[in-house]
Amino acid sequence: MNLRSLISPNTQDNNYLNYRHNDPGSMPGTLRIAQDAQPTQINLIDYTVDQAINYTHLTPQDCASYLKTKSVSWFDVSGLGSQDILEQLAGIFQLDPYLLEDVVNIPQRSKAQDFSEQLLIISQMAIPKHHEQGFWLEQVSLVMGTNYVISFQEEPSKDCFDLVRDRILNNKGKIRSQGTDYLTYALWDAIIDGYYLIIESFRDSIASLEEEVIFNASLTTLEKIYIQKKELLILHRAIWPQRNALEFLIEDNADLLDKKVRAGLKDCYDHTLQIIESIDAGNEVLEGLLNLYLSSISNKTNEVVKLLTIVSTIFIPLTFIAGIYGMNFNTEASPFNMPELNWYWGYPLCLGIMLGISLTSVFFFWRRGWFKQQIPRNNQQ
Amino acid sequence: MNLRSLISPNTQDNNYLNYRHNDPGSMPGTLRIAQDAQPTQINLIDYTVDQAINYTHLTPQDCASYLKTKSVSWFDVSGLGSQDILEQLAGIFQLDPYLLEDVVNIPQRSKAQDFSEQLLIISQMAIPKHHEQGFWLEQVSLVMGTNYVISFQEEPSKDCFDLVRDRILNNKGKIRSQGTDYLTYALWDAIIDGYYLIIESFRDSIASLEEEVIFNASLTTLEKIYIQKKELLILHRAIWPQRNALEFLIEDNADLLDKKVRAGLKDCYDHTLQIIESIDAGNEVLEGLLNLYLSSISNKTNEVVKLLTIVSTIFIPLTFIAGIYGMNFNTEASPFNMPELNWYWGYPLCLGIMLGISLTSVFFFWRRGWFKQQIPRNNQQ
Amino acid sequence: MNLRSLISPNTQDNNYLNYRHNDPGSMPGTLRIAQDAQPTQINLIDYTVDQAINYTHLTPQDCASYLKTKSVSWFDVSGLGSQDILEQLAGIFQLDPYLLEDVVNIPQRSKAQDFSEQLLIISQMAIPKHHEQGFWLEQVSLVMGTNYVISFQEEPSKDCFDLVRDRILNNKGKIRSQGTDYLTYALWDAIIDGYYLIIESFRDSIASLEEEVIFNASLTTLEKIYIQKKELLILHRAIWPQRNALEFLIEDNADLLDKKVRAGLKDCYDHTLQIIESIDAGNEVLEGLLNLYLSSISNKTNEVVKLLTIVSTIFIPLTFIAGIYGMNFNTEASPFNMPELNWYWGYPLCLGIMLGISLTSVFFFWRRGWFKQQIPRNNQQ
Amino acid sequence: MNLRSLISPNTQDNNYLNYRHNDPGSMPGTLRIAQDAQPTQINLIDYTVDQAINYTHLTPQDCASYLKTKSVSWFDVSGLGSQDILEQLAGIFQLDPYLLEDVVNIPQRSKAQDFSEQLLIISQMAIPKHHEQGFWLEQVSLVMGTNYVISFQEEPSKDCFDLVRDRILNNKGKIRSQGTDYLTYALWDAIIDGYYLIIESFRDSIASLEEEVIFNASLTTLEKIYIQKKELLILHRAIWPQRNALEFLIEDNADLLDKKVRAGLKDCYDHTLQIIESIDAGNEVLEGLLNLYLSSISNKTNEVVKLLTIVSTIFIPLTFIAGIYGMNFNTEASPFNMPELNWYWGYPLCLGIMLGISLTSVFFFWRRGWFKQQIPRNNQQ
Amino acid sequence: MNLRSLISPNTQDNNYLNYRHNDPGSMPGTLRIAQDAQPTQINLIDYTVDQAINYTHLTPQDCASYLKTKSVSWFDVSGLGSQDILEQLAGIFQLDPYLLEDVVNIPQRSKAQDFSEQLLIISQMAIPKHHEQGFWLEQVSLVMGTNYVISFQEEPSKDCFDLVRDRILNNKGKIRSQGTDYLTYALWDAIIDGYYLIIESFRDSIASLEEEVIFNASLTTLEKIYIQKKELLILHRAIWPQRNALEFLIEDNADLLDKKVRAGLKDCYDHTLQIIESIDAGNEVLEGLLNLYLSSISNKTNEVVKLLTIVSTIFIPLTFIAGIYGMNFNTEASPFNMPELNWYWGYPLCLGIMLGISLTSVFFFWRRGWFKQQIPRNNQQ
Repeated sequence: MNLRSLISPNTQDNNYLNYRHNDPGSMPGTLRIAQDAQPTQINLIDYTVDQAINYTHLTPQDCASYLKTKSVSWFDVSGLGSQDILEQLAGIFQLDPYLLEDVVNIPQRSKAQDFSEQLLIISQMAIPKHHEQGFWLEQVSLVMGTNYVISFQEEPSKDCFDLVRDRILNNKGKIRSQGTDYLTYALWDAIIDGYYLIIESFRDSIASLEEEVIFNASLTTLEKIYIQKKELLILHRAIWPQRNALEFLIEDNADLLDKKVRAGLKDCYDHTLQIIESIDAGNEVLEGLLNLYLSSISNKTNEVVKLLTIVSTIFIPLTFIAGIYGMNFNTEASPFNMPELNWYWGYPLCLGIMLGISLTSVFFFWRRGWFKQQIPRNNQQ
Repeated sequence: MNLRSLISPNTQDNNYLNYRHNDPGSMPGTLRIAQDAQPTQINLIDYTVDQAINYTHLTPQDCASYLKTKSVSWFDVSGLGSQDILEQLAGIFQLDPYLLEDVVNIPQRSKAQDFSEQLLIISQMAIPKHHEQGFWLEQVSLVMGTNYVISFQEEPSKDCFDLVRDRILNNKGKIRSQGTDYLTYALWDAIIDGYYLIIESFRDSIASLEEEVIFNASLTTLEKIYIQKKELLILHRAIWPQRNALEFLIEDNADLLDKKVRAGLKDCYDHTLQIIESIDAGNEVLEGLLNLYLSSISNKTNEVVKLLTIVSTIFIPLTFIAGIYGMNFNTEASPFNMPELNWYWGYPLCLGIMLGISLTSVFFFWRRGWFKQQIPRNNQQ
Repeated sequence: MNLRSLISPNTQDNNYLNYRHNDPGSMPGTLRIAQDAQPTQINLIDYTVDQAINYTHLTPQDCASYLKTKSVSWFDVSGLGSQDILEQLAGIFQLDPYLLEDVVNIPQRSKAQDFSEQLLIISQMAIPKHHEQGFWLEQVSLVMGTNYVISFQEEPSKDCFDLVRDRILNNKGKIRSQGTDYLTYALWDAIIDGYYLIIESFRDSIASLEEEVIFNASLTTLEKIYIQKKELLILHRAIWPQRNALEFLIEDNADLLDKKVRAGLKDCYDHTLQIIESIDAGNEVLEGLLNLYLSSISNKTNEVVKLLTIVSTIFIPLTFIAGIYGMNFNTEASPFNMPELNWYWGYPLCLGIMLGISLTSVFFFWRRGWFKQQIPRNNQQ
Repeated sequence: MNLRSLISPNTQDNNYLNYRHNDPGSMPGTLRIAQDAQPTQINLIDYTVDQAINYTHLTPQDCASYLKTKSVSWFDVSGLGSQDILEQLAGIFQLDPYLLEDVVNIPQRSKAQDFSEQLLIISQMAIPKHHEQGFWLEQVSLVMGTNYVISFQEEPSKDCFDLVRDRILNNKGKIRSQGTDYLTYALWDAIIDGYYLIIESFRDSIASLEEEVIFNASLTTLEKIYIQKKELLILHRAIWPQRNALEFLIEDNADLLDKKVRAGLKDCYDHTLQIIESIDAGNEVLEGLLNLYLSSISNKTNEVVKLLTIVSTIFIPLTFIAGIYGMNFNTEASPFNMPELNWYWGYPLCLGIMLGISLTSVFFFWRRGWFKQQIPRNNQQ
Repeated sequence: MNLRSLISPNTQDNNYLNYRHNDPGSMPGTLRIAQDAQPTQINLIDYTVDQAINYTHLTPQDCASYLKTKSVSWFDVSGLGSQDILEQLAGIFQLDPYLLEDVVNIPQRSKAQDFSEQLLIISQMAIPKHHEQGFWLEQVSLVMGTNYVISFQEEPSKDCFDLVRDRILNNKGKIRSQGTDYLTYALWDAIIDGYYLIIESFRDSIASLEEEVIFNASLTTLEKIYIQKKELLILHRAIWPQRNALEFLIEDNADLLDKKVRAGLKDCYDHTLQIIESIDAGNEVLEGLLNLYLSSISNKTNEVVKLLTIVSTIFIPLTFIAGIYGMNFNTEASPFNMPELNWYWGYPLCLGIMLGISLTSVFFFWRRGWFKQQIPRNNQQ
């Protein structure tokens, strides 16, 4: 197995230490556009109870006109690479510089913050990778105003809002008859439910790690455990602050939200608790696997040393005896000089003694149970 | 011992990471019927102080009629596989979509939630397995209305409510003279007391693990410890949120409940504390066993290496001496060439020297205490 | 040392997981008399400021008559095996079924609970074992009524109330002039002070373990550490909830108690803090000892392997050289076939080379410091 | 690699245990000038909305005159070595003795404290080292008065306030139109943002450690992990109290600050949370690396012992057989004395048996998988 | 190095488990004079703004007379061995029995308690040992009354109040113009500042341990780490409750104290935080050192085994070959019997093959990097 391929995805997006920041001392509100940020695109879904229209590729000026209508407008801004568009938007929607800084200088810690005119929610979306274990994290910022919601995300291509769009456009459920707070909740709920998919992939990979540790442990197994723990750490860091943000909205700012929406957010909150608990449980199980692994190595070394000891203990004394009778003392110089060599039964006696010694050793080891299989065969490397 | 059989039950019901969820972005209230869910059955125990009647295999329409009576009606719904029946029930009892989602999309995190018309309690029931170590977890949802209690459970065949049924039908104690809140408490109390049975089985298996570690440790022992820890983890996750739910009812919603019932719930709460403490204690003891195990392996390796060292240290020098006098230097070519071979006492002297060396080694090891038994015989593998 | 004797006390009273419970679903207030429970005995000390009388072996009916007097009556009920007597008592004193359940179904978690007519305190008494390390835990329940205190304990023979009895009967201090709350405090105080004796025995045994680890470590040492940790765990579980119970009385129910008594309970509370801290400290020290132990084994293995390596490295090359000159190449077949065998200085030269090689090895090991004593002699097994 | 160079920077500025203190019992307000403290220098930036002037090398008396103006005066005091200047300053600005003690007796724990006339903020500035991994910590104390801010720092040469100076002098952003509280915030914000640079360098060095552990682990790797953990510990100790200080200002002393400034401090607070989380995450990853490392050593030892066992197990029995036929029993003395030596096929048979034995061993090891590569080549030392 | 001398100081004053207590059930207020307690001595410093007089060796009766004056009287009671003197004092100052018990039955947990007439502060003083690493803990109890302060300490000879005495007697600072609360603060402040001296000695010894672990690790090193950790534990237990006591005074009993004194206590509180943080940091660093140590042993064993494996792998096959040609097959009995012995180039060919095999082995090991130095020379034992 290629070890580098195992660690490279994490080295690449090593984002557990990676909050964005400005140069120390620079002005608040300074935007730092990432070099690989994508150009900004603005889509709009504008809906009332009766109808819903989907506009794409708007300019900031287009947005201004939709602002005045009574309908609920969801501006879906994806790609954070066009500084001028973002600043125009900030002007049109009268966004606070601190708000804009948090939205653009990704990644930020998830939070909910009340900017008198708007409510800002910063959230991390977890998207499973195709064809391989792991996930991408992407910051989604939701800005809720009086009759609009703006969602900012890093990449246009992938998000977990498709079902929400479908519900609005095809008038499924009650979403169209609700206000901006309900839309905000629906979007956030979709983000949080997305974590379950990741958790599920962990469940599978931990189950396969369990088998690997018990039946086929190698150093690669350990590295997989290490990587899983690191990914759980990243996931935990992404979901944990969202729990606080939800708490902030439900308890401290109850008046901003409709009662129905608050019930929904309570449900969201329960979900974050479930996700956090699952992550913690996964962590504990991985910790246990680690111990199992370390101990299995000790056991293996013990087995290997046992084999060496058995072979050595049996043969070293025998070799010594053979060495004795390979000495060249002159039997003619003295009757005491190795008379055994000339005995009639000398050689058979010598072999017999050797056999006796080896049988004694074998019996000794057998009684101590050293020949019992300690480890199932396919793990006995 | 078959290792796979040891881990398979856990791989199968690997439910420590397994909360149920909807697709991200789907409507709140969307039901996800599990594929292996059983068809829904409705039983009813309808009682007043004077009488109690047990009805089985009701249809949702039947339920509607019992709703209007003054008696306390306990609808026992088991099996969550029939979506239409469940939705009809929701209609008849006017259940909130969020409530229904939590009841049907199992497993959920345990909680108590107040839905103005109903009180929802989600709880996990632990049922010991027959003939083997371990337990099943099953979600039980209790919905308390004005004159009815609905209990939802996954499987019809097994629960821990038999004694409650017996108390109602045979009028034992004061249960019949109490209202729905008392019934709700009685059911929950039965669920929580069920955990004691599981805890007790842990006590036994930990005690046997203790002996195994000390007298007969093998890699299998370690895996048993690992599995025990995982099961304690699952148990902890099941009971912990119920503690919060009880706290929620006792402290924050005292007005919903009769004083008598509150005293009972306080008792329940004490029981959850006892159970959680027992789980924590079990965990700590297992942790200690793990250390004991790891250390016993190190000790064994030490003993094995000691044996190897003793044998090698004694015989390797002797073999060398034998090797010397096995050399073929021509004694006739020079008086310095191995004159010992022709000495009268050469061979006995040589053997004597060997004996001396080996005795010295043995004395050296004896003085260092290497011959003392470090480990009792039946653990000396 | 007999390992089984070491673990048996704990296997026997493996009570860290052992809270008592009813069958799931059974009525609240159901009594479960333990099979080995002792028959119930009732003693009474009835006192006023002026006199104190000690009655023994009362019947429940006797108790009823003492209830009406103005004097303070301490009913000392020991042995929880006679269900009828206990139920009669419950009737006479009008004890709540929940209260009786907690008193009889031992062991319960320590707590203080206010049952309008009575105050219930459940506490665990720690009694040192004679002639051996360890302790017994026994549940003591104190029921404080208007002019009486009932103490329930498991066994008649041993408790830590003798000094309190002495103070009442012989009018030492001010106890006789105080009410039932002071008596309750005095009893509880005696229970908590009893823990200090246990803590002190731990101090001694930990100090001796320290020496054992450093000078004479064996697997038995590790098991002793393990057992000590388990006993500290049991002790911690017994004292910890009493701290909460005291807090409950001092802070939340200040009005039930005289100011003097509250000061006393505050003192008790300080003592539980001291005991808990001592237990925690003991635990940390044992943890450190564990590390010391594990490391000393690694060190020993290192030393053993070093010895093996020294012996092997010195003698294996020499044996090889001896082997060379033990070969039987025909020196007459060719001038290149082992001419050394016929040299005049062949044998001395060969021995000289061997000496040179071995001295080189010895010098190599000496320079690396392998001959230095790493471990004091009496620990070098 | 030079180990000493690795640890020396930390031994030198071993400041994780290094808070400054007075002699026990000495008067509060006693100044302890560090021996290597630099002479004190006072610079001033004095600004109004319209202009900003930069004065350098002021005397304390100069300062007094600028105090009376309406402009905002930022006194930048660097170097804490001149006791007389510092005491003159304390006189002019009427600084509390406790305040002066905290400012001068560095290092102190970061905090914010309200001294009626002034607000004191003690903070730690982290400055990356040039050309090597690691950072310097320097205490910065901010004293905010009615129309002035005094910043005290240890060394004149390096700080992270350059961008703030630039913003004031060149009138960038709104800083000039704000009061002293905004300046205080801007300085503190610059200090806290400086931590991101350090965090970033950790991200890089942890990533390189990951590779080192997996592909090229040595004892040096472990020491690097140890040093990284120690530096994260130092960093954590420096930033953690600043979080509390910010909380103190935002929540408990909201009335001291302008609303705008409070929003900024809230932003600062979010940053400290991000930094602390990053440090915690770094710590957890290093912990994981440590396990990976320890396990890779065990694996290596296992591999080494395996090789030894293979070689020994194959050759020791063969050498024994060769030893047998090297014995000198007199074949003429008896027909039983080593007749094999005179057989026609004796030698080839003997070699054949040896070959058979060795092939059997090899097969045995092959079937157990001992020849499989466990560790990639470049890690197989 | 003498290990016993290393552990003996701790075995002697094993005071981390050593709170003093009465017999269970004994009266509150019972005094337990320690057997080795020193005779009680009373000194007095009596001062007003204008003068300060130092009296020594007072009797309790003397004290009574000074009580009536308006001056501030500091009674310095050292030695707690004279029960009658202590009880006379209690009578004169009307000390509560609980108070006296806490003062005399040392050691107690540090705390501050309000006894209506007096304020009791129990504190632990840390005094560095001369000429050796480590410290003594001594309980100091401060009793603050209306116009007097009594300080109780265990031993007359050593305390950290000398600078306070000097400040009073020589009228340094403002201490003489303040009341009893300021004196109490000054004494406590001196006690807490004394901890810094201990912390500093830890810094030095940890730095030297770091070097020892990296360059010269032995089992003694580990024991030093263990002892350091235990001493930090003792120190932590001594300082931690003082933090709570300070909090109790500053926040809950603000009305007892002058505003100036409260500022001083706040400063004290900051110091305890700094000390606790330093202890925690020291602990973490020691934990890291422990890992470093354990890993260095594993590394060393690995190196030792490698050497053994290299030597064995090179020479064992060679010895086998030598053994082959040492066999005595009769070359005349058959042309297949070891014809090599009679070959013209037999011996050189044999030596050549041996050389070839050994070079192959060496190359194999070289390519795997086994000859690289893993550990610096002076650590390679």
